[in-house]
Amino acid sequence: MSTVKLIEYEEAVPEVRAVYDDIMATRQIDWVNNFWKALAVQPALLRRTWEGVKAVTAAGALDPLVKEMLYVAVSITNGCAYCINSHTAAARKKGMTDEMLAELMAVVGMANQTNAMVNGFQVELDEVFKDGGRQT
Amino acid sequence: MSTVKLIEYEEAVPEVRAVYDDIMATRQIDWVNNFWKALAVQPALLRRTWEGVKAVTAAGALDPLVKEMLYVAVSITNGCAYCINSHTAAARKKGMTDEMLAELMAVVGMANQTNAMVNGFQVELDEVFKDGGRQT
Amino acid sequence: MSTVKLIEYEEAVPEVRAVYDDIMATRQIDWVNNFWKALAVQPALLRRTWEGVKAVTAAGALDPLVKEMLYVAVSITNGCAYCINSHTAAARKKGMTDEMLAELMAVVGMANQTNAMVNGFQVELDEVFKDGGRQT
Amino acid sequence: MSTVKLIEYEEAVPEVRAVYDDIMATRQIDWVNNFWKALAVQPALLRRTWEGVKAVTAAGALDPLVKEMLYVAVSITNGCAYCINSHTAAARKKGMTDEMLAELMAVVGMANQTNAMVNGFQVELDEVFKDGGRQT
Amino acid sequence: MSTVKLIEYEEAVPEVRAVYDDIMATRQIDWVNNFWKALAVQPALLRRTWEGVKAVTAAGALDPLVKEMLYVAVSITNGCAYCINSHTAAARKKGMTDEMLAELMAVVGMANQTNAMVNGFQVELDEVFKDGGRQT
Amino acid sequence: MSTVKLIEYEEAVPEVRAVYDDIMATRQIDWVNNFWKALAVQPALLRRTWEGVKAVTAAGALDPLVKEMLYVAVSITNGCAYCINSHTAAARKKGMTDEMLAELMAVVGMANQTNAMVNGFQVELDEVFKDGGRQT
Repeated sequence: MSTVKLIEYEEAVPEVRAVYDDIMATRQIDWVNNFWKALAVQPALLRRTWEGVKAVTAAGALDPLVKEMLYVAVSITNGCAYCINSHTAAARKKGMTDEMLAELMAVVGMANQTNAMVNGFQVELDEVFKDGGRQT
Repeated sequence: MSTVKLIEYEEAVPEVRAVYDDIMATRQIDWVNNFWKALAVQPALLRRTWEGVKAVTAAGALDPLVKEMLYVAVSITNGCAYCINSHTAAARKKGMTDEMLAELMAVVGMANQTNAMVNGFQVELDEVFKDGGRQT
Repeated sequence: MSTVKLIEYEEAVPEVRAVYDDIMATRQIDWVNNFWKALAVQPALLRRTWEGVKAVTAAGALDPLVKEMLYVAVSITNGCAYCINSHTAAARKKGMTDEMLAELMAVVGMANQTNAMVNGFQVELDEVFKDGGRQT
Repeated sequence: MSTVKLIEYEEAVPEVRAVYDDIMATRQIDWVNNFWKALAVQPALLRRTWEGVKAVTAAGALDPLVKEMLYVAVSITNGCAYCINSHTAAARKKGMTDEMLAELMAVVGMANQTNAMVNGFQVELDEVFKDGGRQT
Repeated sequence: MSTVKLIEYEEAVPEVRAVYDDIMATRQIDWVNNFWKALAVQPALLRRTWEGVKAVTAAGALDPLVKEMLYVAVSITNGCAYCINSHTAAARKKGMTDEMLAELMAVVGMANQTNAMVNGFQVELDEVFKDGGRQT
Repeated sequence: MSTVKLIEYEEAVPEVRAVYDDIMATRQIDWVNNFWKALAVQPALLRRTWEGVKAVTAAGALDPLVKEMLYVAVSITNGCAYCINSHTAAARKKGMTDEMLAELMAVVGMANQTNAMVNGFQVELDEVFKDGGRQT
């Protein structure tokens, strides 16, 4: 069970309800998932976190599905089961197929492998990659 | 300096040269970056790793740029400087703009934040997310 | 189930019992939690680990509650569920309120976010921060 | 070098300048560190991140020095050199002595050790710790 | 439940069956564990991954039991429960005793502790360790 | 530069000198590496940490070279450059060849890859692996 009491809509203070309402309106659903009910232990933390998530997952220079898959990639690397499941579900809703998920996993797997081997051999950065190729 | 001697093309055994050749042909460049020169300490490891990287970064159900950005997201979360720089450079070559990089970073930042908070509050997985939304 | 047999007090060798006794005396409780029962697979490992934990959580230049919250912060970042739950419980016993837990979580969340973004942009360390501000 | 161009005050757009001004006013200093100059690549990301950092490091139920030390503990666990140096410097400014730093490190060290051993032995959570001791 | 459907032998396509057959032949068992059944969502990913695991766990300059224990050490540090359990079981089958497991855990615990403290104090690398002692 | 002053032998208090002496005697060398000079900021932390490292790296049920390679595997997974370099150097001194290092790296690479994919697909633990195969 969570280490703080989950706050349901009915018992929530107005500031919390306002965030729950915006989550449901933005996502066009009629319920709020447990993560937000835990954050509601501190209404300001809930509001700030939701504003961040809402901003970074909105359409922009990157497609919302791409953003959701990036979210999954990070969650896998951190080993957060709740996050992997919830963002995989969100990505599926936005169109991710099993084939796309398999390719995502293949990239994430190889990235974790080569990250480890680069560290392990302490490979020096090639001159041309310095600054992430910004000036080349 | 790397913990194994980097193997240059000129001194490489044929099995290593074959991989270097394929890397250069696939990427349409005339040089090989240090990571591969370190892996060449064991030709079979070099070959296997290159086959993996080549396979997962090729076009498929996901766009090569998306794959490169997923690679960056994992590398950031693991804090691998070589990997962040080299894959950011690769993503730029494939069309990633500063605006796209900023959005990538915004997602990766929020994902690391919410991953931590989900863990911190030990939030229970909502029923609907079980199995990554596969059956809903 | 744990990958080694948990050793109960009744079946423990004297060296293990002595550690269990000291844990109970130090914490003023009459039971020992599972972590120690697993470490008892090797009495020397149990003793050394307990001495370390006992030393670092005792009052000193930092308050025991602050130390417990630092323990929680690390456990969250590592995603260790057992550790998060047990040290959150210990912090509550030492006086941590829900409000304090929420602030702890807010810091841990932002720290994980900005750590990722600093890595992601490969930001150069400002001169004034070199050596952790030791000489400024 | 950073993977995006650092934006100096003189060349910044008004939205960025406003954040820089608030950082300097809040911290009572006359300069801005590199992290913010990198985030300025996307003014909205800069603003949102600063608001988060400002909120979580302000005085509240926890002391600002405690918050800074929690920030250091997370940064160590993530291995972020920039973050460790900058937040250690910030903690020193807020009163952290060498003795306090040593105790912080001792806790962070033991926490990383016991986190690993709890994982390694796959220790089952004791009933009394479920929900972080919230109901006991 | 896993985020993709597990593919059983009976329903598998020939490319998948061939891998399952090789896993069973190599390990001299008559069943395949769930990990491979998940990877089967993309036969090429399954084949490539199995080839990698088969290659790195075979006898060579290092003993298979040593390799299995290295696998456990990494899995612990990443906090992957499935991996810890399955590779601990594999190591036991190859001869790891409780005493060896305890020593493995003791090393992994101390390594995680000192890794954190080295990071925390930002210790400069001694000249003699540069390049992993390759030239000394 | 390190975030605390490194304590040289000449300026050290007796308790610190005693540890430095034991490090040099145990390792049969005439110098002490920087890590210990940083820990000397708190003599008790130095002593406790050295006792732990000395104990876990001594010969026992596992060979000292195997222990050193386990240390390297953890250090790679945590991305600690100082630790990777110093423990790779120590392993070389104890007999690790380039071929053995390559095999170590191959295992560590695959382990990081499959750890990520197990997490990513949220694979359920097979019944037979429960408790790390302790009872089978």
